[in-house]
Amino acid sequence: MFKKYFLISTMLVGATINCAAQQKDNLVQFVNPMIGTQKMGHTFPGATVPFGSVQLSPDTDTLSYEVDGKYNKDAYKYCAGYQYDDPTIVGFSHTHYSGTGHSDLGDFLIMPTVGKVQLNPGTAKNPEDGYRSKYSHQTEVAEANYYKVKLEDHNILAELTTTTRVGFHQYTFQKSKDSHIILDLMHGIYNYDNKNVWTFIRVENDSLITGYRQTTGWAKTRTVYFAMSFSKSFKSYGAKDFTKKEVYKGFWSKFDQTKNFPQLAGKQLRMHFDFDTQDDEKIKIKFAISPVSTTNALMNLKAEIPGWDFEEVKKQGQEQWNNELNKVVVKTEKREDAVNFYTAMYHAFLSPTIYMDVNKEYRGLDQNTHTAKDFINYTTFSLWDTYRALHPLFNIIQPKRNDDMVKSMLAHFDQSPLPMLPVWSNSANDNWCMSGYHSVSVVTDAIIKGVFTGDANKALDACIITANQRNYEGIGDYIDKGYIPSENNRTSVSNTLEYAYDDWCIAQLAQKLGRTSVYNEFLKRSTHWKNVYDASIGFMRPRLADGTFRKNFDVLETEGQGFIEGNTWNYSLYVPHNPAELIKTMGGEKKFIPHLDSLFTMDLPDEFFAHTEDITREGIIGNYVHGNEPAHHVAYLYNWTSQPWKTQKTVRMIMEKQYHNGPDGLGGNDDCGQMSAWYIMSSLGFYPVAPSSDRYDIGSPSVMNAKINLENGKQFVIDVKNQSQKNVYVKSVALNGKILNRLYITHKEMMDGGTLTFQMSAAPKLVKK
Amino acid sequence: MFKKYFLISTMLVGATINCAAQQKDNLVQFVNPMIGTQKMGHTFPGATVPFGSVQLSPDTDTLSYEVDGKYNKDAYKYCAGYQYDDPTIVGFSHTHYSGTGHSDLGDFLIMPTVGKVQLNPGTAKNPEDGYRSKYSHQTEVAEANYYKVKLEDHNILAELTTTTRVGFHQYTFQKSKDSHIILDLMHGIYNYDNKNVWTFIRVENDSLITGYRQTTGWAKTRTVYFAMSFSKSFKSYGAKDFTKKEVYKGFWSKFDQTKNFPQLAGKQLRMHFDFDTQDDEKIKIKFAISPVSTTNALMNLKAEIPGWDFEEVKKQGQEQWNNELNKVVVKTEKREDAVNFYTAMYHAFLSPTIYMDVNKEYRGLDQNTHTAKDFINYTTFSLWDTYRALHPLFNIIQPKRNDDMVKSMLAHFDQSPLPMLPVWSNSANDNWCMSGYHSVSVVTDAIIKGVFTGDANKALDACIITANQRNYEGIGDYIDKGYIPSENNRTSVSNTLEYAYDDWCIAQLAQKLGRTSVYNEFLKRSTHWKNVYDASIGFMRPRLADGTFRKNFDVLETEGQGFIEGNTWNYSLYVPHNPAELIKTMGGEKKFIPHLDSLFTMDLPDEFFAHTEDITREGIIGNYVHGNEPAHHVAYLYNWTSQPWKTQKTVRMIMEKQYHNGPDGLGGNDDCGQMSAWYIMSSLGFYPVAPSSDRYDIGSPSVMNAKINLENGKQFVIDVKNQSQKNVYVKSVALNGKILNRLYITHKEMMDGGTLTFQMSAAPKLVKK
Repeated sequence: MFKKYFLISTMLVGATINCAAQQKDNLVQFVNPMIGTQKMGHTFPGATVPFGSVQLSPDTDTLSYEVDGKYNKDAYKYCAGYQYDDPTIVGFSHTHYSGTGHSDLGDFLIMPTVGKVQLNPGTAKNPEDGYRSKYSHQTEVAEANYYKVKLEDHNILAELTTTTRVGFHQYTFQKSKDSHIILDLMHGIYNYDNKNVWTFIRVENDSLITGYRQTTGWAKTRTVYFAMSFSKSFKSYGAKDFTKKEVYKGFWSKFDQTKNFPQLAGKQLRMHFDFDTQDDEKIKIKFAISPVSTTNALMNLKAEIPGWDFEEVKKQGQEQWNNELNKVVVKTEKREDAVNFYTAMYHAFLSPTIYMDVNKEYRGLDQNTHTAKDFINYTTFSLWDTYRALHPLFNIIQPKRNDDMVKSMLAHFDQSPLPMLPVWSNSANDNWCMSGYHSVSVVTDAIIKGVFTGDANKALDACIITANQRNYEGIGDYIDKGYIPSENNRTSVSNTLEYAYDDWCIAQLAQKLGRTSVYNEFLKRSTHWKNVYDASIGFMRPRLADGTFRKNFDVLETEGQGFIEGNTWNYSLYVPHNPAELIKTMGGEKKFIPHLDSLFTMDLPDEFFAHTEDITREGIIGNYVHGNEPAHHVAYLYNWTSQPWKTQKTVRMIMEKQYHNGPDGLGGNDDCGQMSAWYIMSSLGFYPVAPSSDRYDIGSPSVMNAKINLENGKQFVIDVKNQSQKNVYVKSVALNGKILNRLYITHKEMMDGGTLTFQMSAAPKLVKK
Repeated sequence: MFKKYFLISTMLVGATINCAAQQKDNLVQFVNPMIGTQKMGHTFPGATVPFGSVQLSPDTDTLSYEVDGKYNKDAYKYCAGYQYDDPTIVGFSHTHYSGTGHSDLGDFLIMPTVGKVQLNPGTAKNPEDGYRSKYSHQTEVAEANYYKVKLEDHNILAELTTTTRVGFHQYTFQKSKDSHIILDLMHGIYNYDNKNVWTFIRVENDSLITGYRQTTGWAKTRTVYFAMSFSKSFKSYGAKDFTKKEVYKGFWSKFDQTKNFPQLAGKQLRMHFDFDTQDDEKIKIKFAISPVSTTNALMNLKAEIPGWDFEEVKKQGQEQWNNELNKVVVKTEKREDAVNFYTAMYHAFLSPTIYMDVNKEYRGLDQNTHTAKDFINYTTFSLWDTYRALHPLFNIIQPKRNDDMVKSMLAHFDQSPLPMLPVWSNSANDNWCMSGYHSVSVVTDAIIKGVFTGDANKALDACIITANQRNYEGIGDYIDKGYIPSENNRTSVSNTLEYAYDDWCIAQLAQKLGRTSVYNEFLKRSTHWKNVYDASIGFMRPRLADGTFRKNFDVLETEGQGFIEGNTWNYSLYVPHNPAELIKTMGGEKKFIPHLDSLFTMDLPDEFFAHTEDITREGIIGNYVHGNEPAHHVAYLYNWTSQPWKTQKTVRMIMEKQYHNGPDGLGGNDDCGQMSAWYIMSSLGFYPVAPSSDRYDIGSPSVMNAKINLENGKQFVIDVKNQSQKNVYVKSVALNGKILNRLYITHKEMMDGGTLTFQMSAAPKLVKK
């Protein structure tokens, strides 16, 4: 009999599907880390545990972000170090962002080789000129916390797994008196040639290396320490300093520092460790990192992987993954949908990353060592992206972690000299990437939803201080004039719009805490979006200091029009906190609905997207760019009109077009899980249009059934009747058997547990307004 | 009545001399920090406390040590940042070596200015082009822990004092709306343009700055943290990054980082802090440093100078100095002799420097934070120089500190990946400067003399491991062949000679600890000096691997002959541990005495000293170069002949010629106190020809009387009868009234307290051998 739907089973990938779900389903089998590794997904295929500090993954190339001070466009595709179409692997490095649209990291590249020692990586065209190797996707296996590939040029099988702070390498060599492990400290993602500030290596004994890498780049000043332990003593080792001009060699030259010299420091160092190997001999490496010191790195190493059992470490990491994935157990019609869903869950659980040693020490913004006494410290906050759906998702299925994330952001605030909550923070830095002060949305949402366990008033103070940081991106003007004059800021309109939403978040929290004057002030500020709306053209528009709107203006162009990663067609819809008022302002739904419709249907020539670098052409639907976040909520805006069925149709269409099981399965950068979080929420049938309200707008679930296992022990079930690829319309929704006469559910309803039952249909339910 | 001799008084400089010495004599008055600041002394005139971490001193210029990879000869005179003949002061920086022949440091330059903000230092020729200022020696006052000067271009009076870890600045401004304090993080001694690896600054509030400076250079990898506190809030501030090519500006450019932006990181930063000032308004700055973190720097600052009383801090530091100087209370014939003596004491008590925060944390060789649980951690070990007389002097008058210094060296050993005891260590680095492994001599001497309180056997093990470090400067060859073949090493002969002495030290300690096989092995090694002696010419000479002596050889040339900082005429006398055997080997005293005589009397043309850069021409007596250490013991070698009166005559002649009260008062680099220690010991009438023996050879005291106040509470008095400038010969010596029938005293005799009475005479006492 044809199996009409796909039930998550306990069996491994490739095994027969079993209809009987057990206590903990085997969900790891549905994770495909290769999704998004081709083109613009910017995900990495390597090994990591949930929210791990280490992302141990193959790099197929890296390019300098700038060449002679000019932006090098080609570097962009290497944000995560791996591009599916590349023919060679340079090696395996320990840190990677998932899905970002700018980059850094790629620390500590390891590569096993045989034959003549080569300390240059070589090129993809001529891998034999260096230590890199050809490989084939046929030999490649990518699972959650496991990666395997055959390095063809060296006839070495490479396997990778991890714990939170330790990468575990297993290399199977063949018989040779010339086997090597390369450690490349020059390697890094972006700014390959010049981002190293300093590196330091110590050969502590014949199987233990420690050191650090200090870089500048996206993170202005960043240091990662390491401890590297070999399963077998090396017989000799050597190093080369590739620095063009070394400052003062002096008495250091007493030693031959290229051979067996145990302490090295410089900007551009590469090392090799030499072994005799037998056929099928495995050399294993445990490689721990720390933000604090090599002492701590060694402590992390010993604490997390005391032995040498690679299989056991892999298994434990996969169990960790399985536990996390079991927070939502879905039934889907097709296996691909399950893969899409659990790979989205996997990607959503990669960032923010844990940034703290096992003894709870971490590096603060002031570059001093701090101790996270009563929380777990996280970093990698891509907040302009993740405030939208990722942190709201965490409030449902990762409240403990989101509490810690908010505490990490508040610790950042305490350490910031401005002070300010993070904008885009990583490794004790803020790189100030993108715009808004959306940490505010994450903080207030977590408090409003009861997730945050700290001092709410202090947190609100941090939000207020951040929102009043006059020197940051036009905030002063925004406060004084109610908008940012176009002359003063390149992205004056989108900033004004984003600030208005963030201010509304502050108002919501102030209201909850009974701080009326703050509420009044920020509720007023939350209406500032109106100041950049030009009723004469029906769009948000750059406004000059004198109050007039800018003359030259293109409603379809993205670049140079006052917006960031979006044109005004999209950004004019960015009032997530008050769609009703927006619709009224735009002339009522008679004008609003056609605007929204045409967003998804208009036929634009390619040149309009010449500047849209972080999505593939397929990532664009009409004028809607799903790979860029500003419009992530817009498909749900039909809920505020008389045509909510268009939300249902549109979100299903987006899920269908933008997500599939393949290396090119993401239409744009995954952006530290935001794209995936959008998919998870939409698949389940709801979406947080305005985080910090407790409302989740109903769309159209794509799953057949979902059990959300809440941390409070309760279960919230989404049961979808009459689900099919065609039945995208919601006929009715019932909460615990009672028909819901609204288009949203609340956070409390979900936290109380229960069942949300969707009745689906092939025909839209028409609402008269 | 003409005062025949000069008695140290309790009065201040310039006051009437008072003959009655009190409990603690005022000896600070005799310290003249200007001695050695002209030409090649390489001392600094600024403020510091004994063994202080901070040396706050004016820099009159700094030059890059290398220009386009080539040595820049002109940089050499700026080893301590100050040259007496220079017309301008660039500013005041916080760290300086005293008397070194290579350099580093000069961290954190502060300069007060008025008028237009200038962030360039300007040039000595055109100081008005930058922030530097003209000054005059007329307005300059340099005392122990106090420095004062008028900055003429800015009409600002600058005053400096310190505690161990904090520099205290006091600047008296006149009325202006344009007063500034410049903080220059680019400034540094040597490698001005390129030795900064990274710098970091945080404006914590309107009167507190923190940050760090990380450099490469003499110390390969070094970081100094700071906390800087102003007595008055600045009204505004700004910064400039002078980096030619900044890696990735990106979203950092959202902020105007040149004005009031509180967190900066980069390679080349300078800042200004702006004030309104009234007439005679004092702005004070407390500037603390730490090897560990800005947190620790701030802790040091608060612990050492809680208030703002400049006079009190100055007074306390001078009291510290007075206590240290009172360890030896001398009577001298002339005031100048007292100034020479106490300035020598002052210079001898500048290095090694304390390298540890008030909480006992310090940075180790592995760049991790360590805690000095049961000792005070020191750095700045110029051991090739200081093993000779400085550490032996400390064994007499600073045993507690020397114990800690040895413990610091052993901690260094524990942290060294080679492992090795320090060669020339500074700030958690070994710069491997000069040769030998003379830490061995310091360690064994301290143990043999009962000063070391740690585990003697473990210390001996460290010495043995160091002496067997085969990869270091020919040690492997030296062990295998008994000498270092000339082909393999540029300084093969001096290395062989120095290792032989160090090995003798190890043998002495092994004997004391009853480790016979070690004793036998190293006693044998201590005779290796014979393997480079060429009897056919009567000199030590480079020897080839095949056993023959090198053909082309010049006994007077210093460069390229197999020696370091000395020719063979000097180095042939370098067997400090066995002069008797040396004399025998050289053909008996009939050949030896003329060799020694001619060393001091021969008339050499200037070109012989073309390569001798670290001494002035006046620092050379015949072929004897007092400014270079290898011959520091040779004047005492006459004691092993029948003409000890020549030792007496010669040491008095050297004291007379090489030391005087004036900026040019040192004939060569003071070398972290070794030149001064030679003077102190020789002035008192004895010298440790071979540290690790307990013998101090008697020379000719220049003082009239000296009371050595030992830490054990006893007093050892040197009483010199019939002293005069002409009565340089020792007629007799009595210990506690009993005539001494030998030419030395022992360490034990000194430690027991008592009186050594010299009877002086204008005529030599002729001995028949």
